[in-house]
Amino acid sequence: MRRFVADKAKSLFHLSRSFQRRPEPLNPLQSLLLTRFLSSTSIVDCPSPSPSSSTMDPPTPLTLHTINPKVLKCEYAVRGEVVTIAQRLQQELKDNPGSHPFDEILYCNIGNPQSLGQQPITFFREVLALCDHPSLLDKSETSGLFSADSIDRAWTILDQIPGRATGAYSHSQGIKGLRDAIAAGIEARDGFPSDPNDIFLTDGASPGVHMMMQLLIRSESDGILCPIPQYPLYSASIALHGGTLVPYYLDEATGWGLEISDLKKQLAAAKSKGLSVRALVVINPGNPTGQVLSEENQRQIVEFCKKEGLVLLADEVYQENVYVPDKQFHSFKKVVRSMGYGDEDIALVSFQSVSKGYYGECGKRGGYMEVTGFSADIKEQIYKVASVNLCSNISGQILASLVMNPPKVGDESYESYRGERDGILSSLARRAKTLEDALNSLEGVTCNKAEGAMYLFPRIRLPEKAIKAAEAANTAPDAFYCKRLLNATGVVVVPGSGFGQVPGTWHFRCTILPQEDKIPAVVSRLTEFHRGFMDEFRD
Amino acid sequence: MRRFVADKAKSLFHLSRSFQRRPEPLNPLQSLLLTRFLSSTSIVDCPSPSPSSSTMDPPTPLTLHTINPKVLKCEYAVRGEVVTIAQRLQQELKDNPGSHPFDEILYCNIGNPQSLGQQPITFFREVLALCDHPSLLDKSETSGLFSADSIDRAWTILDQIPGRATGAYSHSQGIKGLRDAIAAGIEARDGFPSDPNDIFLTDGASPGVHMMMQLLIRSESDGILCPIPQYPLYSASIALHGGTLVPYYLDEATGWGLEISDLKKQLAAAKSKGLSVRALVVINPGNPTGQVLSEENQRQIVEFCKKEGLVLLADEVYQENVYVPDKQFHSFKKVVRSMGYGDEDIALVSFQSVSKGYYGECGKRGGYMEVTGFSADIKEQIYKVASVNLCSNISGQILASLVMNPPKVGDESYESYRGERDGILSSLARRAKTLEDALNSLEGVTCNKAEGAMYLFPRIRLPEKAIKAAEAANTAPDAFYCKRLLNATGVVVVPGSGFGQVPGTWHFRCTILPQEDKIPAVVSRLTEFHRGFMDEFRD
Repeated sequence: MRRFVADKAKSLFHLSRSFQRRPEPLNPLQSLLLTRFLSSTSIVDCPSPSPSSSTMDPPTPLTLHTINPKVLKCEYAVRGEVVTIAQRLQQELKDNPGSHPFDEILYCNIGNPQSLGQQPITFFREVLALCDHPSLLDKSETSGLFSADSIDRAWTILDQIPGRATGAYSHSQGIKGLRDAIAAGIEARDGFPSDPNDIFLTDGASPGVHMMMQLLIRSESDGILCPIPQYPLYSASIALHGGTLVPYYLDEATGWGLEISDLKKQLAAAKSKGLSVRALVVINPGNPTGQVLSEENQRQIVEFCKKEGLVLLADEVYQENVYVPDKQFHSFKKVVRSMGYGDEDIALVSFQSVSKGYYGECGKRGGYMEVTGFSADIKEQIYKVASVNLCSNISGQILASLVMNPPKVGDESYESYRGERDGILSSLARRAKTLEDALNSLEGVTCNKAEGAMYLFPRIRLPEKAIKAAEAANTAPDAFYCKRLLNATGVVVVPGSGFGQVPGTWHFRCTILPQEDKIPAVVSRLTEFHRGFMDEFRD
Repeated sequence: MRRFVADKAKSLFHLSRSFQRRPEPLNPLQSLLLTRFLSSTSIVDCPSPSPSSSTMDPPTPLTLHTINPKVLKCEYAVRGEVVTIAQRLQQELKDNPGSHPFDEILYCNIGNPQSLGQQPITFFREVLALCDHPSLLDKSETSGLFSADSIDRAWTILDQIPGRATGAYSHSQGIKGLRDAIAAGIEARDGFPSDPNDIFLTDGASPGVHMMMQLLIRSESDGILCPIPQYPLYSASIALHGGTLVPYYLDEATGWGLEISDLKKQLAAAKSKGLSVRALVVINPGNPTGQVLSEENQRQIVEFCKKEGLVLLADEVYQENVYVPDKQFHSFKKVVRSMGYGDEDIALVSFQSVSKGYYGECGKRGGYMEVTGFSADIKEQIYKVASVNLCSNISGQILASLVMNPPKVGDESYESYRGERDGILSSLARRAKTLEDALNSLEGVTCNKAEGAMYLFPRIRLPEKAIKAAEAANTAPDAFYCKRLLNATGVVVVPGSGFGQVPGTWHFRCTILPQEDKIPAVVSRLTEFHRGFMDEFRD
């Protein structure tokens, strides 16, 4: 057998430089492999140094000036300063009840329904519990505790998991049988085929968005078209990946309309600046704006993306949250296919999550993205990035398959499931309307209808005296308002500046999620606060 | 009330340029806010363009040449080419039984115990099921199905979750009560205090590693010292974040020893190249190498990091996997504190996961990092990045608290828990020894002991004829060997080139995870294959 480099020649890189340590020159294959290994990742090519560490530079301390500036740039208002204050107040209330003019903090800053008392859908939780502890399925008592169809569904799911091992890493895209179920659910929703190999299961929608930004953004010269106002996941993710957010503006005066003319204008402007615009983000139903796009508007968006070669990133996590009878959710996949376009025409990614809808299972961190219109070699790259994190959590995967395939007519759980679902959705619609009306009754406040999603995004016209007071406090006027609101009422909302807004206009985002028995209190606290605020700062 | 910018003036950026659209010039506060919003993320500053889209460049198609080159560079061998072939073979076996000289694929490529039949710890799964479906706790049948202490534990955990809402997003670092429990577990392990505010719960260790790389890496000029061989999460994550891997070499001849002299030499060499080296990765117990560091060696590493101002990234996910009586796991946190060093002396991140140990709950995606020695403002930045993804999954969070606080003597589950735990660990030790002996008995193969972790990393001395055959097939010799092994036996192992190795040496990584009743078959298949391979290619 041929004698190779001695064990002691430990450095890969000394080979190419310090020949005295290498008994034989590299053969062609070794050279090839060395080149490959060096090119596959940036690896420093170390010469044989004189190890005189005394001549080294002093260590660079880790400070805000020496961390990745992209991290520093990134902002995420949904859990920003106002929420930090709220957490402090909550602790103060706990340590010292009665220390504030309210007895609880109402977190209306974030779409987190179960944190405000929404109950999970029983069927979903039954299936999850059985899959978490499958030996329950062998016990006779179980049939008295669980519905028959939850037991059936748990068996079906376990049979789809190799070795029934719910504690094993799955395929990097998610368990194949669950992807089959999700694809079937998409087909039932859209009336067009869905390929389970296009589905990537994710720990909620956010990691999917990050993955796509990572794929698309090469440098600050790459732009992503995003709505303003937008959900700050997008600005944060673009900042973290070092790209440039290209804003397009939703028109508040027309119920947060999305105008193709503005898209075109912003794209042209970005291109004239030398940007390469790679993708368009559409959030439908809108966050923070709550509008539901018409099918006609969606067709225009598809044509625009097709013509401009943009990847369409469709945030469709609120697809089950539509509250007005004259609007309906249409997936972009369905719109694209109904226009006769196939994989070769347009690259489309649809994001879905178990956190929203009527289920609101935020803590489970489940979701998927359906990736269509990408070439096989690009999909391999997405697969590779997914593989580095191995897989998304299996409970979240199971739940994603359940929300896309809930109980059907005739299943034992169907009636209770339907009751829970419809109860939540109709209550959300009532809450949206009550809060919208209450906001519109306030002096200087106008609020568009929440057609869908979980938020209202009222505009507040602040008196100049309030703006000056905010200025003196070195705070944005909307943040000033929101902090005052929190300190007076315990209600947590997010300043509009965290989402982007036309300058000189001020908004806040408020969820519609407090339980119905709390809504009157929210309305009266908000109304009373606002009246006092306006009186205090009236010009 | 002051009249503001008209609703129709939609572009943030027109403000600064197209004065005709803005009724009034910006006041100082508006200017300040505009500047802040523009600097918080890169947002293109759009002038008023002539919307002549006909003059635009044609769209750039999405190809391998136009995606983020960092994604292209990233490699992750643990789920690389050999695994893709294995998945194809598995499908072929399913579609056409008898089509290969084996009847199942044995995935020894990845530390995924439950995929190979390891059973979960009953107590952990009982608690998870109860937390998934808390209404079980109100039913009388439940006490017949669940152990008393699992019921108690579920109540304790639910009481720690605001509103008992296991379906709600938690605090971005994880549920405070669970972090308290984890901190208590760390204190019990180390004998030194742990602060729950230093704990960040994560979806497994990988997202924690990514988060730290994202924080530390600014550009290719930033280096991270990593062992070679290394777990490819590190090379992949450094590639994705655009940094440079600075290798240091573990010495195979001394059982994969970590020599400070090599660390010093590689650091000096990297610095002489102009790199700013920011952190040192240590994997203990080692992956893929299986060695367990001595406390003395760990002290040297700590001194080195302290002197050089390096962040110590301690991958301690195999802390429960030690198989030899003369070695013991010591956390770096304990070593640092026992040397009298505090937060002001050294920045240390310890990564732990629910995927490894005796629990092997890979699919649950739970874990944490304990972040010590960072200033408050840097920790705020880590918190912000964690917030962008909202929180890790709650089941994984609960499980992380359980593995750090398993049943205690006197608890109803203690005996069964101890039996399951010890059974798994002693079986792993036997499997490691059997496979190590079998590998060492093969011609041209030497294999260090697996003192810990879940892998063996044998060196194979390949005949020149085999190397030439690999060259002809445009394949690395170790990958050539592994693919032949897979095609002949169905056993999946990972070529050493995926982890890094001294050039001209060839290895593969093989887990010790097949169940004990399968080990004889693995050994005989491997032995028979190796004999045939050597005969075929003997010089």
